[in-house]
Amino acid sequence: MKRFEADVYRKRVADLRRRMKELDIDAYYVVTDDFHASEYVGDYFKCREFLSGFDGSAGEMIVTADEARLWTDGRYFLQAADQLEGTGIQLMKMGEKDVPRIPDYLAKTLTPHSCLAYDGRTVSNAAAEEIEKALADKAMVYRTDVDLVGGLWTDRPALSAEPAWLLDEKYTGESRMSKLARVRKEMEKLNCEAHIIASLDDIAWLYQLRGNDVAYNPVVLSYSVVLKDKAVLYVNEAVISSEVRGALEADGVELRPYNNIYGDLEKLVDGMSVLLDKKKSNRALYKCIPVSCKVEDHSSPVTLFKACKTPTEVQNEREAHIQDGVAVTKICYYLKTRLQGSEELKNGKVTELDVSEHLLNFRKERPGFIEQSFEPIIATGAHGAIVHYEPTEETNAKIENNTFLLMDTGGQYYQGTTDITRTVLLGEGTEEMKRNFTAVLRGHLNLADAVFKKGVTGVNLDILARSPLWELGLDYNHGTGHGVGYLLNVHEGPQGVRLRDAGGKIGAPFEEGMITSDEPGVYLTGKYGIRTENLMACVKKGSSEFGEFLGFEMLTMVPYDLDAILPEMLSEHEKELLNAYHKKVRETLSQYLTAEENAWLEKATRAI
Amino acid sequence: MKRFEADVYRKRVADLRRRMKELDIDAYYVVTDDFHASEYVGDYFKCREFLSGFDGSAGEMIVTADEARLWTDGRYFLQAADQLEGTGIQLMKMGEKDVPRIPDYLAKTLTPHSCLAYDGRTVSNAAAEEIEKALADKAMVYRTDVDLVGGLWTDRPALSAEPAWLLDEKYTGESRMSKLARVRKEMEKLNCEAHIIASLDDIAWLYQLRGNDVAYNPVVLSYSVVLKDKAVLYVNEAVISSEVRGALEADGVELRPYNNIYGDLEKLVDGMSVLLDKKKSNRALYKCIPVSCKVEDHSSPVTLFKACKTPTEVQNEREAHIQDGVAVTKICYYLKTRLQGSEELKNGKVTELDVSEHLLNFRKERPGFIEQSFEPIIATGAHGAIVHYEPTEETNAKIENNTFLLMDTGGQYYQGTTDITRTVLLGEGTEEMKRNFTAVLRGHLNLADAVFKKGVTGVNLDILARSPLWELGLDYNHGTGHGVGYLLNVHEGPQGVRLRDAGGKIGAPFEEGMITSDEPGVYLTGKYGIRTENLMACVKKGSSEFGEFLGFEMLTMVPYDLDAILPEMLSEHEKELLNAYHKKVRETLSQYLTAEENAWLEKATRAI
Repeated sequence: MKRFEADVYRKRVADLRRRMKELDIDAYYVVTDDFHASEYVGDYFKCREFLSGFDGSAGEMIVTADEARLWTDGRYFLQAADQLEGTGIQLMKMGEKDVPRIPDYLAKTLTPHSCLAYDGRTVSNAAAEEIEKALADKAMVYRTDVDLVGGLWTDRPALSAEPAWLLDEKYTGESRMSKLARVRKEMEKLNCEAHIIASLDDIAWLYQLRGNDVAYNPVVLSYSVVLKDKAVLYVNEAVISSEVRGALEADGVELRPYNNIYGDLEKLVDGMSVLLDKKKSNRALYKCIPVSCKVEDHSSPVTLFKACKTPTEVQNEREAHIQDGVAVTKICYYLKTRLQGSEELKNGKVTELDVSEHLLNFRKERPGFIEQSFEPIIATGAHGAIVHYEPTEETNAKIENNTFLLMDTGGQYYQGTTDITRTVLLGEGTEEMKRNFTAVLRGHLNLADAVFKKGVTGVNLDILARSPLWELGLDYNHGTGHGVGYLLNVHEGPQGVRLRDAGGKIGAPFEEGMITSDEPGVYLTGKYGIRTENLMACVKKGSSEFGEFLGFEMLTMVPYDLDAILPEMLSEHEKELLNAYHKKVRETLSQYLTAEENAWLEKATRAI
Repeated sequence: MKRFEADVYRKRVADLRRRMKELDIDAYYVVTDDFHASEYVGDYFKCREFLSGFDGSAGEMIVTADEARLWTDGRYFLQAADQLEGTGIQLMKMGEKDVPRIPDYLAKTLTPHSCLAYDGRTVSNAAAEEIEKALADKAMVYRTDVDLVGGLWTDRPALSAEPAWLLDEKYTGESRMSKLARVRKEMEKLNCEAHIIASLDDIAWLYQLRGNDVAYNPVVLSYSVVLKDKAVLYVNEAVISSEVRGALEADGVELRPYNNIYGDLEKLVDGMSVLLDKKKSNRALYKCIPVSCKVEDHSSPVTLFKACKTPTEVQNEREAHIQDGVAVTKICYYLKTRLQGSEELKNGKVTELDVSEHLLNFRKERPGFIEQSFEPIIATGAHGAIVHYEPTEETNAKIENNTFLLMDTGGQYYQGTTDITRTVLLGEGTEEMKRNFTAVLRGHLNLADAVFKKGVTGVNLDILARSPLWELGLDYNHGTGHGVGYLLNVHEGPQGVRLRDAGGKIGAPFEEGMITSDEPGVYLTGKYGIRTENLMACVKKGSSEFGEFLGFEMLTMVPYDLDAILPEMLSEHEKELLNAYHKKVRETLSQYLTAEENAWLEKATRAI
């Protein structure tokens, strides 16, 4: 079987090489992204998997006449080695010593005047520019208008074409026309006559449109160009109902076929000034813009507008988090009163996927729930220490006793997007486990309690969450917080909470209405993982002659596991924060819970 | 008199214009810096003052055939307006609306093919490049080899020529040869064959040389070029004794006349790779390097080496801070027991300069004391709210009762450099004053208490000092901390504690041995200022599977004024920090104090 499979990929690489030879292409580059650098890619875009058999979520290939190599990161070294066996494709372990990065490999491998080709719709400007820089002295030819793997892929799945739908203004608090007017005002400030947008969540926000073309992200495959007097939405017109079309056209939005943007850009008026965020758009789009146009490479005003939720959106998010809190509190109730101490648990009858399913069912009962906002992480014991662990049929483990169960899940609601992590102690925990849990909770509470001056970024704030861990010689190898969309992507920019932003920068300042996660953790390989995560809305705290001050409001409404806390580690102020939060959770959720659940909640949120 | 003075400057500008005409120069640029961008400039370098009469510490001029303009910042608007009156020189108020910056002014004023000239030894590469960028489309001619103001200045003061002296290895803990070897190793890593150094403190550190050519900075006017097999020190040979020369030459250091570096750089071998920190070197140096050479624009390895004090230096700094602490504690004793409540104070017999002199006399009694490390800030009442206030004969105020006296002073000792601020309450203080004092102290203590992972920068840490102020709607408009040299400049890089570094960057990470100030404050205009400042050494705190952890050790040894503290605002942990510090101060200083002073210290450092 294995042997047979490997031969399939050998043949595909050979077919690709034949086609490269016909077109005088010396190297072909295959990446993982879709045309919009989405976090998840649909089956249509899985060219690298089609060509190599490797199906991890990250990996890039270079094929030349003599060599085929695949680069991936540490998460996938074992899986890739296994899946590439016998294919003739060489695994390049990124980050390991003596493993060159792709630009350096190309610089060493290709002779002057070679031709490098790739599907420019799937490659980022940053990656393309890095390659061009490394090959600057080679007088290279670049072809970005070919999709050679697509050409070989006879049974390629179709592009996703899920129906688009309109998000009512009662959810967004702002009309499409108002949003377009704000974008045009920013374009004017930047002296730009056209603004090209390729990121799907930016487009969904701007046009109050939602869909289902990317897993967990309720977006519609599309591009957009905003001009002074009209806006063009490039989209598969089959997914647009007459109602949607009518609403868009009434606001001056012209619909054009999805792929027409490339040809349309080539016809932009000479000398036009064009706003384009090169980081958030693919190489082909950029290449289509006539050289006579002036490209202003600047983040889209939509990115910041989208991040700053309207008061209506914030109020809706509060609602979504109450409903979501009911579902997650119900699973906590189940875990702590039904599963904990049960024969079922001791006999290993309940698995991670069982818990995942229970929780999904609780969410499905909540009004406004649409779908999950990302693949659930339900991780027992040592699985919790694998930061990106997601249970699958292959890895699914029995819930263990006397250890932590880490649950990082979320939902998409009409009232917003949720993302919550609770780590629950089942059975007995050691002092060390409780010490670490309490340290994580202290960091989590202290970040949420911050009052800070306008202009402050997540790079300034991050230490508030890490300090209690650092005091114990602990740390976590991920950011402390990410922005979250409104019924959109669970990860969005521009703000975040981390020690350093890309390029050693301090990142984007917090602004009122931004929704951000607060999720410190501790991960002990082979033992357990702890993470505690709430979403917080950035709110005004007051102003004085010294400036405006901001802070956070907890949106998430689910108790922390008091059984895992060492109260003596908390300062008086931290105890007050904890007790006040638990009181609010209890008062907010009780009306949605059964008498038994409320009896438990009373205890689970008692003041300590 | 005024009239007469203004005519002097009118004539000087006219003379300059005549000379410009002779040399076909359309615009002449005069700045404030010396040849080394030192923090203070000697009289020799005061060309702008000679030309305009304006003697503030910041100001730049552009003179054209028709116009003479002087740019300065908000601190000097009043003074400059006064001093420029009648000179025909137009004041440009930097930062005000519609006031162009110099590059923009030049771009609007100069016609194509104009000639802009300046003394390239006094202009930074950054300023020159900004001007060249703004004038990029003008096909300009630049002359950087002229000193036209110097040519008019017949009675110009001589360049400082104070004797240089050697700092013994018992103070530095490292030999000159070892330092040179470390620099050469870094040069090799950067593939550089020559390293040009122009910053005086970097040169002083490298050659274990000290002098007195810049106020408060014990440095020697010099340049240096380090090569693989030798090092050249460009210095006025008259300041080098035979003993100093002998020690330098024994370590392979060649001495050459100060100004010869410019000619020598022009003769660098074609194709040589040269390490030069453009930010820390003047335009003329850069322009002298043959175009065939490759300039690696990178911070000098000396900058980081110098910042990371050796264990010997840290131990010496502890000593210096004990001696300095004795002097400052003696002034506190005087203020709180002799001045406070006295008729002298009530009758306004004691001035800021009196206190300054008392303190200097206490310092002069301490072993190892050389000079003050900066101009003392002794500020009573509302003067304390002016962040850069320094008492002079003109501003000198009587010490007021029932308000704060802010004292920010420091010393240069053979054992290191000190910088300390204590704010002392004289008489009665209001609740608000004590609340603000306590908030500043909380920030000060919390920053010093930080434990953080290696890699963390001051941008990550700054919030620890500001949080207690922000909670009250307060803030301070300066950084929280700066690096401090070892018997060198009281301000040195690369580390610092602030919310953002230049260019929105996160700045340099802390490393073991760095010495940094911790100085939050509150300034209420027209009322009072509070600042509390200690120096701290960065020390190892431990390591684990999660990394190495660092923290701070307080070097400064002087009590905080307990009379100004509201104990109920402090957490238990903050009280422990305060009491532990005071206990250490008491135990460390008592042997150097009189019985009366110790009796007071006992009370001033009591546990609360």
